[in-house]
Amino acid sequence: MSSTEMAYLFIGASTVIGLIYGVILILVLSRVPVGEERGYHGNDERHLKDMIGIKTETKTRINHHTGEKDTYEEEVGPYHDSWDQVIWTLNKITTAVANGAIAFLKEEYKILAIFIVIFAVIIALLVDELGTFWTTGAFVLGALTSIVAGYIGMKVAVFSNCRTAYSAINKENGLARAFRVAFRGGAVLGFVLTSLGLLNLAIILSIYHYFYIEDYENDVKKQEMLRKLYENLAGYGLGGSTIAMFGRVGGGIYTKAADVGADLAGKVEAGLEEDDPRNAATIADNVGDNVGDIAGMGSDLFGSFAESTCAALVVSATSPEIAENYTSMLFPLLISATGILVCIITSFFATHIMEVDKAEKIEKVLKYQLIISTILLTPALWALSYYILPTKFNFIDIKTSLGCIESITNITDIGIQTCVSDNIITKDVAYWHAFVCLACGLWSGLIIGFVTEYFTSHSYTPVREVAESCKTGAATNIIYGLALGYLSCIVPTICLGVTIYFSFKLSSMYGIALAALGMLSNLAIALAIDGYGPISDNAGGMVEMIHLKKEVRAKTDALDAAGNTTAAIGKGFAIGSAALVSLALFGAFITRAELGEVNILQPLQFAGLLIGAMLPYAFSAFTMKSVGKAANQMIVEVRRQFAEMNKNPAYEPEYEKCVAISTQAALKEMILPGCMVIFTPIVTGFLFGSKAVAGLLAGILVSGVQMATSSANSGGAWDNAKKYIEGENLIKKSDPTFKDIKAAAVTGDTVGDPMKDTSGPSLNILVKLSAIISLVFGGFFSKYGGIIAA
Amino acid sequence: MSSTEMAYLFIGASTVIGLIYGVILILVLSRVPVGEERGYHGNDERHLKDMIGIKTETKTRINHHTGEKDTYEEEVGPYHDSWDQVIWTLNKITTAVANGAIAFLKEEYKILAIFIVIFAVIIALLVDELGTFWTTGAFVLGALTSIVAGYIGMKVAVFSNCRTAYSAINKENGLARAFRVAFRGGAVLGFVLTSLGLLNLAIILSIYHYFYIEDYENDVKKQEMLRKLYENLAGYGLGGSTIAMFGRVGGGIYTKAADVGADLAGKVEAGLEEDDPRNAATIADNVGDNVGDIAGMGSDLFGSFAESTCAALVVSATSPEIAENYTSMLFPLLISATGILVCIITSFFATHIMEVDKAEKIEKVLKYQLIISTILLTPALWALSYYILPTKFNFIDIKTSLGCIESITNITDIGIQTCVSDNIITKDVAYWHAFVCLACGLWSGLIIGFVTEYFTSHSYTPVREVAESCKTGAATNIIYGLALGYLSCIVPTICLGVTIYFSFKLSSMYGIALAALGMLSNLAIALAIDGYGPISDNAGGMVEMIHLKKEVRAKTDALDAAGNTTAAIGKGFAIGSAALVSLALFGAFITRAELGEVNILQPLQFAGLLIGAMLPYAFSAFTMKSVGKAANQMIVEVRRQFAEMNKNPAYEPEYEKCVAISTQAALKEMILPGCMVIFTPIVTGFLFGSKAVAGLLAGILVSGVQMATSSANSGGAWDNAKKYIEGENLIKKSDPTFKDIKAAAVTGDTVGDPMKDTSGPSLNILVKLSAIISLVFGGFFSKYGGIIAA
Repeated sequence: MSSTEMAYLFIGASTVIGLIYGVILILVLSRVPVGEERGYHGNDERHLKDMIGIKTETKTRINHHTGEKDTYEEEVGPYHDSWDQVIWTLNKITTAVANGAIAFLKEEYKILAIFIVIFAVIIALLVDELGTFWTTGAFVLGALTSIVAGYIGMKVAVFSNCRTAYSAINKENGLARAFRVAFRGGAVLGFVLTSLGLLNLAIILSIYHYFYIEDYENDVKKQEMLRKLYENLAGYGLGGSTIAMFGRVGGGIYTKAADVGADLAGKVEAGLEEDDPRNAATIADNVGDNVGDIAGMGSDLFGSFAESTCAALVVSATSPEIAENYTSMLFPLLISATGILVCIITSFFATHIMEVDKAEKIEKVLKYQLIISTILLTPALWALSYYILPTKFNFIDIKTSLGCIESITNITDIGIQTCVSDNIITKDVAYWHAFVCLACGLWSGLIIGFVTEYFTSHSYTPVREVAESCKTGAATNIIYGLALGYLSCIVPTICLGVTIYFSFKLSSMYGIALAALGMLSNLAIALAIDGYGPISDNAGGMVEMIHLKKEVRAKTDALDAAGNTTAAIGKGFAIGSAALVSLALFGAFITRAELGEVNILQPLQFAGLLIGAMLPYAFSAFTMKSVGKAANQMIVEVRRQFAEMNKNPAYEPEYEKCVAISTQAALKEMILPGCMVIFTPIVTGFLFGSKAVAGLLAGILVSGVQMATSSANSGGAWDNAKKYIEGENLIKKSDPTFKDIKAAAVTGDTVGDPMKDTSGPSLNILVKLSAIISLVFGGFFSKYGGIIAA
Repeated sequence: MSSTEMAYLFIGASTVIGLIYGVILILVLSRVPVGEERGYHGNDERHLKDMIGIKTETKTRINHHTGEKDTYEEEVGPYHDSWDQVIWTLNKITTAVANGAIAFLKEEYKILAIFIVIFAVIIALLVDELGTFWTTGAFVLGALTSIVAGYIGMKVAVFSNCRTAYSAINKENGLARAFRVAFRGGAVLGFVLTSLGLLNLAIILSIYHYFYIEDYENDVKKQEMLRKLYENLAGYGLGGSTIAMFGRVGGGIYTKAADVGADLAGKVEAGLEEDDPRNAATIADNVGDNVGDIAGMGSDLFGSFAESTCAALVVSATSPEIAENYTSMLFPLLISATGILVCIITSFFATHIMEVDKAEKIEKVLKYQLIISTILLTPALWALSYYILPTKFNFIDIKTSLGCIESITNITDIGIQTCVSDNIITKDVAYWHAFVCLACGLWSGLIIGFVTEYFTSHSYTPVREVAESCKTGAATNIIYGLALGYLSCIVPTICLGVTIYFSFKLSSMYGIALAALGMLSNLAIALAIDGYGPISDNAGGMVEMIHLKKEVRAKTDALDAAGNTTAAIGKGFAIGSAALVSLALFGAFITRAELGEVNILQPLQFAGLLIGAMLPYAFSAFTMKSVGKAANQMIVEVRRQFAEMNKNPAYEPEYEKCVAISTQAALKEMILPGCMVIFTPIVTGFLFGSKAVAGLLAGILVSGVQMATSSANSGGAWDNAKKYIEGENLIKKSDPTFKDIKAAAVTGDTVGDPMKDTSGPSLNILVKLSAIISLVFGGFFSKYGGIIAA
């Protein structure tokens, strides 16, 4: 068996193991008794009836002595007569949420199908050589995989939500059970998506190799062909990212329109609790968590993974030593394969070794997931580098090396000696250089995770300060929260800066791509703890909606608070990896566009840089305003329904109207920002050439990273500051100022919603997508671009 | 008389005319009868008593039929018995505000004096050649001029505030009178600062020339000496900017701590009107307007002007043709001199030609000031370029040209032919190329002004949408306002991008410096309309505090609303010019640091770029949190005083306590962000060398511009949305929802306060200051920098 075959075997085995592990997790989850076929005859049935919430009614009495009227709450018995009814309601809600999510995704995918066709035609015309469809094919496959990934994510989430809610009911160990269910739900997502993504990529890679390279096996131009092949393969990343783009933007608008609307009309105005079933927007809110936070995020990180692999492949083709040895070409895929296996081991710590018996432990267990996977991966990646990579390898500028003689007369007048010396970009890269790059990325990810946790968890000072500032009202809360987000950019940016410096220095652009892959090597775990967040959020919503006792809700709230932090960690992770991926793609683009350097002290480059730095702002403006607009409609509708309810107590909230508002708004509003991201680099390249695009990309990258980080962390901090206050950590509910302080906190949370779940996470994709589009269209820019200036 | 003498005469004459015009305006202002010496025997005395506000008291009555208690407002007679008392109160308040401002500036200047001494020593040691103090001397002079400029600004503003308030009283034409007074106050500021700055710069320039160059008159190295001279002169810009930095940050924290505290404790909680004298923070708020918006802004724009002139001089020394001809070297100063004269003519349109008889006209008249000055300046600058500049000139790389032979062996191995061809950076620049650069800057400034007006004035859709969003609460207001700010970055950035592209293309870095000078050529007018804002804001405060009737306040409110817009225009202008200035300085730095190019596809440069883009966020975090912290203290104090007042109706608010809180907070909190800005480039250069600094500067520039623009415009929009609602344009005050909508609007305004008046405007200085520091320390970096990596 050749080493290449062994490498393929390893990749295949680990993806299959990942998929099987995902299926096992689903089977384990399915044992939580909520479905009809299993009934509700669980072991803990005898406790169950105690957990049904007690209904109260507001009654008026007249004090016979003073003649004054007085209202009081009177208990009128449990909400449900039997446990059957609870399960029935839970199933009803789950079905409503699932239907809403499926309906939305269907509508979204219809639009995306049209988009994929149009964009595939554009790629076929502008990018692929006449008669071939390599890039187009890869694009379509990537797009379809992304759609499948999002759909699976949504399905798993809906499946896990109600089971988490159900598990939280158990009196004795409800918290631990619910935690395990939510975590397993997230883990299914993590393992299925990474395995699927890697498997598909490996398949398409070997197919392309077979058809494309085989003929040229003995050709001296093999290396250039390889580079072309990988440039075509970049279409896979592009497909993944474009879908992720619409998923994030559309899903983000959907979920936050519902959430903001529900919070403002329900919590702030009507004084209801979160997820009160009388609030017509609650179902839409829960649907949103599934389509936005889960489906969108799944597509997003799948895109990151696909793109960083593509970037590493493109760059690795510029190393003769790596290109010689097919096994070492597969190094990027082997990293991800190793990651899947290590993450499976890590996940046992959460489900089998560390018991979550107290609320405080939740965050710790999730944090340990990151720490353990990082520690385990470090030696694994070292071993991988040692065994797979050549002892020493160089990176050369293929274009210069091939076209050296022409270039002297055509492009520059520098002379032959320059041509020879410029040929080698990085010399004598050792296997341990590559390992250092991987480790830098991996550990940077962990540090970014910790910093994010520090700034968004209410266990630490920053969020507590934000909560404290609510005492002086919503305005100081917003000011503190914004400042917190800005402040939280410092360490992640410095981490990224250091990683970039060392990776660049040690193995140039290949190093950057490896750093990105290193950061994403524990992607399965990152996805698991990220997906855990919305699952527990939704579970809390269901507990509220099926009218269980407050103590059940307290458990899901504890899960949810940790979930806000892990969601923020996931976002920090996503933006960090997006920055590295985007830089690696940027480097690949520079190679493809034959620029050699990006001197920003030139008119086009600098103007591009400046305008690029503006794009994240323009993009956030569109997405945030979309949320604001849709939320306004939602508020009006919820208010109308409350008015209806006041007139007629028998009136049932019309959830589907709110679902329709979110769906319509999301589909309508995702088009403009989506097209902005996709067409800005293409149009810039066509009008002003590759140099302007290079500036543009750098600008988007450096500005987008800051904005995404600060948006995600401000939002996460506001959300948890609210939870901190709601948990009576600041003052007691009986205090007369409690209501005002909570209202201030809810305002902050609401402002943070679109920042952390719509504009912020979409910015990752802006950063990555513009880079990969430029890479894919780089050849087109070189040939036909710059019609106005270049 | 030689052409050089004529040029000096022209510069001298225009600065003297500018100063005289300023003095005349002060004399005109002093005729408004508010001082003791003039008494209050104005012409309109007979109307005056009618304008005294009527005092009401809240009384309780018992309905004898139902036995229910009921409160009502009863008029208990006018606030003042005689007009004497009004004037006495006005003088008392003016004195309190003036004393507060002087006390603060004194304390601030004490700290700055220490800072200047320390920093001068650092410059003398690290930058100046042993035994010489050229840069140090220029730095100290620049710093002192900036201090004087800020102090004069504050004095003029205090002088104009009460006169504007007094003029607004007049029944028949109070609005027109008050407008003229406020505008003239702003104009004094504009003309005195620009004239003083230019005069000082011309003096120091001729002194330096005399001592420095005379000896080398016939030396072949004259051109290099010239460049050195101008690099030394850059100390003047540095001095101006460092003081502006502390002025903006300290003043910004001062004013907004007071404003936010006053708004939240007074308007939101206690339900008082703005500037109600019972609110203990009102005096501090008014002091803040003078020390922050006026003194800080004056120093800031003076810094921009000094820096862009220095940048233009440094770059112009790289042109042999310009260096040959001393008159054409003076071109940058002649631009500013022309600007002063044109602006004087323009100002007559506001004071003598266009009558402000209706509130709607205010904004129009101020806008026309920008349009007229731009139109008049266009042919004037053309003529200047035509007569002063050589017909054709080139820019060469002095270092390469002088050290060509050494460079071959030492630095690069490119070969002689490269040395010769790289020598010329830009060839055959014609006078009209320079004019196009100037015009691009000038007209970009106007466009940026218009865009800013569009986004911040409540005459247009964006602000009205923000106001509308207040109907659904504070959260949607914040979301809409943030989105508006982000959106408002698009056009200004594109304008800057286009200006940079053309200027760069036509005359490289000289073109950028000229574009900056072009944008600043109507600086006097920009300052006038910018200074107009806080003057009318303060006047409104005084009208409220001396208890005049609502109709007087309505006039000052109209003035103030236009002032918010013009203040935002001024900020747009300041950030636009800061971007161009900074880029020009960046170019000069690259020359000085002998980098030749800034290839961001290199580790240090890219890491620098990324971290640079983060700095505006870190900086904003510090300044916003400082405001938040100080505002919290303020709120606690104001609440305490309200409680005191409730217990004891005779209790008089202790304004001085609030003044002390603001003063202490501002002085304490300005140190950290100030030092961050100053030492980041120095430390980066020392540790990682010039390449890292180059990346850093570009990052700060492109990210800072966006953040400054969006902060200023979000803040301006929230302020005017609030004014729009208060003016009953959305719904009537009698509507039961009015109170909630207004509270939502005030929350937005309060969040916007630190953004538009503290962090936003300080970002300009971050952008400029880091560039000029790098320029001044560029030589040091080349010699000793990069001890860790380079």
